[in-house]
Amino acid sequence: MERKLIGVDLGGTTIKFAILTENGDVQQKWSVETNILDEGSHIVPDIVDSINHHLDLYKMDKDQFVGIGMGTPGTVDRDKGTVIGAFNLNWKKTQNVKDEIEKGTGIKFALDNDANVAGLGERWKGAGENGNDVSFVTLGTGIGGGLIAGGELLHGVAGAAGEIGHVTVEPDGYLCTCGKRGCLEQYASATGVVHVARDMAEEFSGESELKTQTDDGQDITSKLVFDLAKNGDVLALRVVDRVSHLLGLALGNLANTLNPESIVIGGGVSAAGDFLLDRVNKYYQQYAFSTVRSSTQLKLARLGNDAGVIGAASLALVFA
Amino acid sequence: MERKLIGVDLGGTTIKFAILTENGDVQQKWSVETNILDEGSHIVPDIVDSINHHLDLYKMDKDQFVGIGMGTPGTVDRDKGTVIGAFNLNWKKTQNVKDEIEKGTGIKFALDNDANVAGLGERWKGAGENGNDVSFVTLGTGIGGGLIAGGELLHGVAGAAGEIGHVTVEPDGYLCTCGKRGCLEQYASATGVVHVARDMAEEFSGESELKTQTDDGQDITSKLVFDLAKNGDVLALRVVDRVSHLLGLALGNLANTLNPESIVIGGGVSAAGDFLLDRVNKYYQQYAFSTVRSSTQLKLARLGNDAGVIGAASLALVFA
Repeated sequence: MERKLIGVDLGGTTIKFAILTENGDVQQKWSVETNILDEGSHIVPDIVDSINHHLDLYKMDKDQFVGIGMGTPGTVDRDKGTVIGAFNLNWKKTQNVKDEIEKGTGIKFALDNDANVAGLGERWKGAGENGNDVSFVTLGTGIGGGLIAGGELLHGVAGAAGEIGHVTVEPDGYLCTCGKRGCLEQYASATGVVHVARDMAEEFSGESELKTQTDDGQDITSKLVFDLAKNGDVLALRVVDRVSHLLGLALGNLANTLNPESIVIGGGVSAAGDFLLDRVNKYYQQYAFSTVRSSTQLKLARLGNDAGVIGAASLALVFA
Repeated sequence: MERKLIGVDLGGTTIKFAILTENGDVQQKWSVETNILDEGSHIVPDIVDSINHHLDLYKMDKDQFVGIGMGTPGTVDRDKGTVIGAFNLNWKKTQNVKDEIEKGTGIKFALDNDANVAGLGERWKGAGENGNDVSFVTLGTGIGGGLIAGGELLHGVAGAAGEIGHVTVEPDGYLCTCGKRGCLEQYASATGVVHVARDMAEEFSGESELKTQTDDGQDITSKLVFDLAKNGDVLALRVVDRVSHLLGLALGNLANTLNPESIVIGGGVSAAGDFLLDRVNKYYQQYAFSTVRSSTQLKLARLGNDAGVIGAASLALVFA
């Protein structure tokens, strides 16, 4: 009997689920809304119910499964299987996620943080091409990282390895929510791009649709900035250049440190595609050491929203 | 019978040797000069002879040894056991180091690059306190790095992991020998400190012994800069502050990336001791993400010149 994996990608708005083969092929996918009411106390029971319900639906038995893997926001204790401080889930107190899910489903459970898990996914079945050394950077509302070196996910002593979003790229730059100044996240996340655009619009005096929309008080998004840049808007092009410069600097230094086969760029901002990649690459080439420049390649993520469930499922392979 | 390890630290001026227990206690140490004549073709035979000679001297037999480990400059192919491009050894062509040493001594042999090996040494028996996640940075004529994460040395896809000396800290800064601009090595290595001192002396107009000596065309060294700074020389203090700032930035970002238990600072420049460490720490605290700041500690190296032979010997433990 071929055994299966379950991957769970827990986010602030939806919980995504998938059933996969041990080779990482997705066979079933579904999702439910995340109910963060009552200090997020419904989340774990909802996960258990949803898994049990779908196994019933597909007439599958718990013994068919190697295990469940999950990616989650917050600070993860992988040994204890607990999570704390996931503010978008309203999880302020320690949650015994592993114990409750194992008890509720009868299936073994492993977890890690969401960026690490997405990194595992892109490495396994995406742009990382199952390499031993793959770095993943996700440019979303914030910036997260998942670093695989020598075939293993790096965690560091306090689980903070891969905090690429908080690498300092502008020593006296924008104040970050983390309390430091000049973090990459303040420039190259979706919110960072908008911040850069607003500041540059203020100082810009030429002809620009981005300038007009900003001055009109319209809602500026990272996507709008890239769309306008692609259409040749002068200000938008300058914003993209500044963002690409700082991202190229951070990724160059990441590559100088880890020399992975590839640095995979994912998350909402990466939807700008080759237009972004080409510009980041220009600066990356400038900041990467020669051996690194010729051996570490920047790539766009390939799995989109599936990276999380696929990578999460791969955590369960430890039980195989 | 207790088995032993041999550690070899190959440098451009001396080759250091040590015999150690499997626990890393040094029992014998000796060294020979490095003969780089004739394209460095005497080096490997000299190593073989010196080992065989000392085993005779100590009445030890090759069967007593688990293996020989060696740290070397240049580009290492660990699988093949070869080295190429070690310019301070005159090794321009590929050297079959492993084959020749195994044949010449009858003892198994493993090698890695010198900074990695020194990192292994400080991690095993030095300031790294045998932790699973230890980063080592050596501030010598150049700057090297050895990164241990999850208990394993990181190599990257082309062996260039840990190129901390070539992390960009000043985007439009000093031109580096590697061809890039603004590499950490150009500011915080022994030669970098002198470069910074000379440039700052030119712009400085106050009272300063460092200024006087520089203007007199005297030989400035990194040690002199730190000694004068310790005596309160205003210019020297500013130089140390600038060096510490850029080093704090680079180490803060290294910590944000790997979150090791400790970053161990070694090499000649680190002889400035707590005077340097305190100043680097001030900036490190500014650039490290909060979780990282409280979990990753900067430390001074403890093993001095022995780090190389001790770490090299630890490579041989793979044969145990």
